[in-house]
Amino acid sequence: MQKSKIVSFGEIMMRLSAQGFQRLAQAQQFDIHFGGSEANVTTALAHWGVSSAHVTSLPDHALGHKAANYFKQFDLDTSHIAFNGERIGIYFVEKGSGVRPTKVVYDRSHSSFSTAKPQTYPWETILANASWFHITGISPAISETAFLACLEACTLANKLGLKVSIDVGYRSNLWQWGKSPSEIMPQLVALAHTIVCSSWDSAAMFGLGEPGQNFAEICALLYKRFPNLQQILTTTRTQLSASHNQLTGHLWQASTGQVLDSPTIDIPDIVDRIGGGDAFMAGYIYGVVKQMPAAQALHFAVAASVLKHTIEGDINQVSVAEVQNLVQGDASGRLNR
Amino acid sequence: MQKSKIVSFGEIMMRLSAQGFQRLAQAQQFDIHFGGSEANVTTALAHWGVSSAHVTSLPDHALGHKAANYFKQFDLDTSHIAFNGERIGIYFVEKGSGVRPTKVVYDRSHSSFSTAKPQTYPWETILANASWFHITGISPAISETAFLACLEACTLANKLGLKVSIDVGYRSNLWQWGKSPSEIMPQLVALAHTIVCSSWDSAAMFGLGEPGQNFAEICALLYKRFPNLQQILTTTRTQLSASHNQLTGHLWQASTGQVLDSPTIDIPDIVDRIGGGDAFMAGYIYGVVKQMPAAQALHFAVAASVLKHTIEGDINQVSVAEVQNLVQGDASGRLNR
Amino acid sequence: MQKSKIVSFGEIMMRLSAQGFQRLAQAQQFDIHFGGSEANVTTALAHWGVSSAHVTSLPDHALGHKAANYFKQFDLDTSHIAFNGERIGIYFVEKGSGVRPTKVVYDRSHSSFSTAKPQTYPWETILANASWFHITGISPAISETAFLACLEACTLANKLGLKVSIDVGYRSNLWQWGKSPSEIMPQLVALAHTIVCSSWDSAAMFGLGEPGQNFAEICALLYKRFPNLQQILTTTRTQLSASHNQLTGHLWQASTGQVLDSPTIDIPDIVDRIGGGDAFMAGYIYGVVKQMPAAQALHFAVAASVLKHTIEGDINQVSVAEVQNLVQGDASGRLNR
Amino acid sequence: MQKSKIVSFGEIMMRLSAQGFQRLAQAQQFDIHFGGSEANVTTALAHWGVSSAHVTSLPDHALGHKAANYFKQFDLDTSHIAFNGERIGIYFVEKGSGVRPTKVVYDRSHSSFSTAKPQTYPWETILANASWFHITGISPAISETAFLACLEACTLANKLGLKVSIDVGYRSNLWQWGKSPSEIMPQLVALAHTIVCSSWDSAAMFGLGEPGQNFAEICALLYKRFPNLQQILTTTRTQLSASHNQLTGHLWQASTGQVLDSPTIDIPDIVDRIGGGDAFMAGYIYGVVKQMPAAQALHFAVAASVLKHTIEGDINQVSVAEVQNLVQGDASGRLNR
Amino acid sequence: MQKSKIVSFGEIMMRLSAQGFQRLAQAQQFDIHFGGSEANVTTALAHWGVSSAHVTSLPDHALGHKAANYFKQFDLDTSHIAFNGERIGIYFVEKGSGVRPTKVVYDRSHSSFSTAKPQTYPWETILANASWFHITGISPAISETAFLACLEACTLANKLGLKVSIDVGYRSNLWQWGKSPSEIMPQLVALAHTIVCSSWDSAAMFGLGEPGQNFAEICALLYKRFPNLQQILTTTRTQLSASHNQLTGHLWQASTGQVLDSPTIDIPDIVDRIGGGDAFMAGYIYGVVKQMPAAQALHFAVAASVLKHTIEGDINQVSVAEVQNLVQGDASGRLNR
Amino acid sequence: MQKSKIVSFGEIMMRLSAQGFQRLAQAQQFDIHFGGSEANVTTALAHWGVSSAHVTSLPDHALGHKAANYFKQFDLDTSHIAFNGERIGIYFVEKGSGVRPTKVVYDRSHSSFSTAKPQTYPWETILANASWFHITGISPAISETAFLACLEACTLANKLGLKVSIDVGYRSNLWQWGKSPSEIMPQLVALAHTIVCSSWDSAAMFGLGEPGQNFAEICALLYKRFPNLQQILTTTRTQLSASHNQLTGHLWQASTGQVLDSPTIDIPDIVDRIGGGDAFMAGYIYGVVKQMPAAQALHFAVAASVLKHTIEGDINQVSVAEVQNLVQGDASGRLNR
Repeated sequence: MQKSKIVSFGEIMMRLSAQGFQRLAQAQQFDIHFGGSEANVTTALAHWGVSSAHVTSLPDHALGHKAANYFKQFDLDTSHIAFNGERIGIYFVEKGSGVRPTKVVYDRSHSSFSTAKPQTYPWETILANASWFHITGISPAISETAFLACLEACTLANKLGLKVSIDVGYRSNLWQWGKSPSEIMPQLVALAHTIVCSSWDSAAMFGLGEPGQNFAEICALLYKRFPNLQQILTTTRTQLSASHNQLTGHLWQASTGQVLDSPTIDIPDIVDRIGGGDAFMAGYIYGVVKQMPAAQALHFAVAASVLKHTIEGDINQVSVAEVQNLVQGDASGRLNR
Repeated sequence: MQKSKIVSFGEIMMRLSAQGFQRLAQAQQFDIHFGGSEANVTTALAHWGVSSAHVTSLPDHALGHKAANYFKQFDLDTSHIAFNGERIGIYFVEKGSGVRPTKVVYDRSHSSFSTAKPQTYPWETILANASWFHITGISPAISETAFLACLEACTLANKLGLKVSIDVGYRSNLWQWGKSPSEIMPQLVALAHTIVCSSWDSAAMFGLGEPGQNFAEICALLYKRFPNLQQILTTTRTQLSASHNQLTGHLWQASTGQVLDSPTIDIPDIVDRIGGGDAFMAGYIYGVVKQMPAAQALHFAVAASVLKHTIEGDINQVSVAEVQNLVQGDASGRLNR
Repeated sequence: MQKSKIVSFGEIMMRLSAQGFQRLAQAQQFDIHFGGSEANVTTALAHWGVSSAHVTSLPDHALGHKAANYFKQFDLDTSHIAFNGERIGIYFVEKGSGVRPTKVVYDRSHSSFSTAKPQTYPWETILANASWFHITGISPAISETAFLACLEACTLANKLGLKVSIDVGYRSNLWQWGKSPSEIMPQLVALAHTIVCSSWDSAAMFGLGEPGQNFAEICALLYKRFPNLQQILTTTRTQLSASHNQLTGHLWQASTGQVLDSPTIDIPDIVDRIGGGDAFMAGYIYGVVKQMPAAQALHFAVAASVLKHTIEGDINQVSVAEVQNLVQGDASGRLNR
Repeated sequence: MQKSKIVSFGEIMMRLSAQGFQRLAQAQQFDIHFGGSEANVTTALAHWGVSSAHVTSLPDHALGHKAANYFKQFDLDTSHIAFNGERIGIYFVEKGSGVRPTKVVYDRSHSSFSTAKPQTYPWETILANASWFHITGISPAISETAFLACLEACTLANKLGLKVSIDVGYRSNLWQWGKSPSEIMPQLVALAHTIVCSSWDSAAMFGLGEPGQNFAEICALLYKRFPNLQQILTTTRTQLSASHNQLTGHLWQASTGQVLDSPTIDIPDIVDRIGGGDAFMAGYIYGVVKQMPAAQALHFAVAASVLKHTIEGDINQVSVAEVQNLVQGDASGRLNR
Repeated sequence: MQKSKIVSFGEIMMRLSAQGFQRLAQAQQFDIHFGGSEANVTTALAHWGVSSAHVTSLPDHALGHKAANYFKQFDLDTSHIAFNGERIGIYFVEKGSGVRPTKVVYDRSHSSFSTAKPQTYPWETILANASWFHITGISPAISETAFLACLEACTLANKLGLKVSIDVGYRSNLWQWGKSPSEIMPQLVALAHTIVCSSWDSAAMFGLGEPGQNFAEICALLYKRFPNLQQILTTTRTQLSASHNQLTGHLWQASTGQVLDSPTIDIPDIVDRIGGGDAFMAGYIYGVVKQMPAAQALHFAVAASVLKHTIEGDINQVSVAEVQNLVQGDASGRLNR
Repeated sequence: MQKSKIVSFGEIMMRLSAQGFQRLAQAQQFDIHFGGSEANVTTALAHWGVSSAHVTSLPDHALGHKAANYFKQFDLDTSHIAFNGERIGIYFVEKGSGVRPTKVVYDRSHSSFSTAKPQTYPWETILANASWFHITGISPAISETAFLACLEACTLANKLGLKVSIDVGYRSNLWQWGKSPSEIMPQLVALAHTIVCSSWDSAAMFGLGEPGQNFAEICALLYKRFPNLQQILTTTRTQLSASHNQLTGHLWQASTGQVLDSPTIDIPDIVDRIGGGDAFMAGYIYGVVKQMPAAQALHFAVAASVLKHTIEGDINQVSVAEVQNLVQGDASGRLNR
């Protein structure tokens, strides 16, 4: 039971969404949500009863505290959130339908997270009771200070024997601070135990493989370069329309050298697909923490991600029982009286 | 034209729904609707021009009167609603989407309907001009007093020559008052002329047949036990997702001993499926009242039910012409200028 | 660059819509939009950067000015809108879903547009810098004065060498002012260069061909009667449900005597189909203005129309780049970060 | 108990209101209410348990029936509403605040009420069980047919021994049909027993007295001209701002030749003042029906009117007990647990 | 710093409010808030940085957890909330304006709090680190089990040397469980150190003094009866209208035998007065905890209460700095840029 | 008629407001408005029919264009708005009530306006047809580049003979770019013809006079320092509460050396006070443009400002007739039918 906390580090943003299917140009009101790729993972875990904490920086004003307070309802430990800097990053969303995609306008530059000094975070204290540390490829892409904080935390986590996971997902609109991902990401992935990495990510960030290449081959290349890796995950998403996708999960394990494929689950009538990847990561960590067999953890991860698509906002507000129900094959949406 | 009124008896509840696809945990507002399985039937009939009344008990405060007044807009006769007791039953709904089901939280215990004494209702007066009396298996499941009122009313209705219909639908979360359905329901069904009863209901309530057994066989068993029965109805619902179902109606008639099957109608893009079964019952009664041939009445019932799935709230706010249009095969949703 | 303005003439109405999937009978609020078949065309063009103006009459009160001001955000030239008469036409909309169609209740009689005298509009000035003049079959159906204004404008446009386009679409609920379309529409179409005309329109308005007849044959008949015509357009709409259609465009050209067919595009999850035909017309004019080859202009028109179905309100608030993306085959609705 | 129904006749309009304190120019939604000066009176009475009916014409479409159904929740008898004509009159409202007044834009011309033929209404049947008939000066101002219906009904009511009341309130924006109020109103007032008439009305409609003249003098002049009159009522409204008024009622009785003045009641924080005059009329009729002494009926009328200012919409949705509470002097707004 | 936690015990209810100034009869949506007289006190304290916990019972379903999670955003310790029973108490609110009072409809019977057994709460553990225990006169009025839990907790708190405060406020619509307040409340007040008690409460609950009697006299009577008491508080509320009150605080201290009066603060433009009394209690406890002089603590309490009237919902979401600003006399509402 | 355009220069921000009286911490939605102190002035003028343009920089994305398009409905010339930089400044607002002030959280750093290079704006072209140029003390406080653009524009305007007005209003939360206002503002005011400047501004920005000093004395000091000045304006605002202010205008003229005082106008029931000062400036410019006598222009300015307090959003959406009505003394808020 000791040292069992899952800790994540990354930016929390305010999400302002046009209502219904309005475009940003039409919006008269914005719905307010909060999220962040890393916080979405630990918040789902906390909501599922796994002790979890998130670390970030937010401005010390009404909106910064609103953001931090938002996560308390899910039992996420927010005691390591630092209040400094000037602003909370914002992103504006309009929901697509049919052939029209969902669109995002980012306004995240100069955020408290991006300007916070690495020494803001007392990692020794933060990681003292932790068993797992999670980041993504977004944080090192934001600013040099954010990268340095990631590096310090991952190094310490490694040294303390925590599992380190990184969702490396490449975002081409970031990486403005002077370094390319291929200069930076290998330093972090070398410290990781579990990563989420597609062939597109692998090619863009590490120059390994080709976009679209067979995942098992990609994993072999990654493992050769980063022998610390024990698991590599990715998903295949078939996009029939903005409102209808299909999702399959893939898991490579160093222990077997094999790739497991989950069942493909249909996702009709998507309500909100933002946070779907984070729900997959959270589901997988949940499976590992609960010592599920690998295939079951992968299936749980995909089902959790699919259910996230039916929930408004970044946070996967579904229960473990609901995920298990879908894992057991009930996708009927039958009325629960 | 005399003694032509359709009368129903049962609880009216306030339905509080989370907005859009929000979960109850996310809701900041509730939309307010009113409904009840039996009142939904007579309200649809009243809305379609068939003289109808509903009998129930509601608390004598702002919300009880709000509930009663709500039904007046549909021309339902509410003059026999009694005001007594302490509270109106409430149910809370969150709408599902895709693989996530719609969920209901009930808060109906201790309602005015459940506590009202049987003598609250002057059945001689109420049924004086009626030709049909309708209840469901929900009312006797709520409380002993509600059961006794049902029994008294059905007995009198039978004596007065009214047709008595019962939608026996078994609700496992009720029946808390000390008796099992198999002790109670036979007393009522013995008085009925028309019932809605699936193989699951038959097995659970009467110990007749197996869940999923062939409907004609179930009907034979039911008829043997309840020789008063003239019609037995049920529907087959294929649940592709929370948002996409398919519906077929089935009608057994004592006069032929045969089961008629309606065409199967596709229900894409479900707006609100609560009340779908009640719309089926209302549609069938409408067909009988209008002296449609049996197959046509059944088809009308299914079409009415399908259209209900496109309407917010419990009440089937569609016109007879709209149902007829669907019966005639136009499911195209073509714009009506 | 000279004389390049696209000018349209027709009624602007206030559209009051029930929210979500509520019926008009259920509505507690109306959402407010403005639109008109002809203004929808030029507003899309203005929004796409093509200099465009719309001409109409509106009442000189808060709602008339609200209507006119609404279009300024799209850079439509509203300087020729006249303020006179008593009221703005209104139409009330409830959105259908699945098997239930969208319904419209019109309240457009006695509008400023219908009562404005033909001399209200200084056509010499209005058309001075124009290259294209667009009307529909709705305006001459509204009132004699509206017809006379159309006739005067088309005649002058023809004389000045403008291209004249008419979407002849027959509306059976109009034409109340004493003349039948077959007495009136030929006078206008004789002046047109481009029309949108289905076999149903052709049969109803000109007595040419049969409803449902092969489009090439219809075009041959129309061309024989109206030898001025250079292009005839129409669409085929397959209506799977109120929420799911498919659309194909067809273009006949006098220069070839042949009919081109666009690819068929699927339209799942329709948000709002009103204005879809106007978006097709706007797309085609855009293609011609930008000197696209005919097949490409037709494809652009269909794609523009399909995207309109994903937008709330009458106006096609999508960008040229978004239409081009769909023309290039991306209907995946992939998230745009 | 016989012949005790209160019957009113007049136009019912759909009221579309900008939300909060938005101007019409800013509105994105309209709140929907229904009302009409005469219907507001009988609806309040029905809501207070006095058997009442309203007579009007509405269009036979979704909005006409929505209007009629709206009043059923208040137990108003709507069985004499005729469905004919083309449209329901609409008025658009923006709520003022402080120094900015509430504004109304009318769109009521060509309504079903204004075009209905006098023979639409079977007055013999309608008035058969009535004891009181109420109209206002608005109906005869709308159209000749509406005037003729008023005249026929008042004449018959008089003949049948009903009390006839007229709120003569002059509306300068009406009277477009060719006659001036002074040609018309005397014919109706000659048939009345009770009128509401200020010095401004008297001067404008009958050429009697001066605007602002002492009310007792006005009453003397009116009585001399219309010796049938038994009661003349008016109110004095002090307008401190759009949100703060004060109201006093005045009642002249033929039996005494004296004017009674009610206490002045303060109206801070006005929520909605439309319908305030109708609430005064309803309150007075209620007092008479309940055989209150004249001063008490007047006080009840003023208190009812004051409470109406705290209610959204045209209808005075307060209880008799609430009015009585204010009559007894409790204007404290003390929380009712 | 040890044993410094403030602990409260009492029912948490879901509050469902009609929007704006709508009556319950008009509401189409309810706004959702949570509150409870005792939880409101500790939640304000937690929000102000004083370590605080609340103890209650809630049902173990979506709404019970929603209620508990709601308070986490304010840093209230909810770890002692028990999940049992069937329902969460609900109260429905319509906001008054001007002469129309705010009205409440309670639906709290049979709640989890009312049915929870006294042994539900491990008081030894709960009070282990506490310095202050707070209840109100509502809990013992709800049920015998709730009274017994209060008695057990107060007795233990007394034994452990905690300060015990009771807001005795008499609610005439409670006390249905078989005992009168005068049989019950003295047992609790005998254990209290600080109470809020008006002359009305004193007369109704203890038979001491007369309603409206001088507060110092009341305090003398109470002190004689309950010699444990160190402080007695009350407020004087002048109710000019539902939207405009004035508030003065009064504090009697055993140490001086004198009554201190706070300045009277004007409360124009009330947004929501529910929870105003709880805010007063919280303010006073804050003052004591922060060791303010008595007059200053009283002034802080009144200012906190006044500010609560400007906040939607039961919780006093203002900062200490904002209260201090009002204490220092700035009631100008000057814009804070 | 030539060179008559009023031109303003300054930042346009997106304003996101909590709804009703919610605090930012409570908000679930933000209402979206756009405004800026300088744009508010010219937008009011354009709305009143005075040819006006605004110059600014906005980001070239959906929100930047949304902002620019917003102003087109008011007929403001936006053709000189430049699209560059990364973000639009945002400010978040919660509306106060009674003793609780309205609060603003700014998030305007790094906006397109603040980073735009001075050469962004082709002042020769922009000012070619202008007669008046208006800025405020906010722009030079934002960044050095914004100051340099102001300086260049004011210098050119002066050279071209335009009137230059500056609302010098000191904002202590700006001026972060390295210079103090006293180093910067004198360079601009030396080029001005008309300024708005209180004694607080004068003391803070120019070291002239004392806060609260007699306005005539302040004007004398300012005139001595800036002999170009022809008019100095200010207002006295009495703040009774967040919802109730009173406003008086003051105008010093070089031609007389005297200060004129406007009547004091009461502002009860404030809807939105942001933009009140800009409405005063716009009103004064309108008076000058329309060649009103000075006292009348001043009265018009105050009345315009008072009316702005009744309007949601930054823009003074009232008509000239409405301002004139208030100037003529009608503050009764009498219903306009």
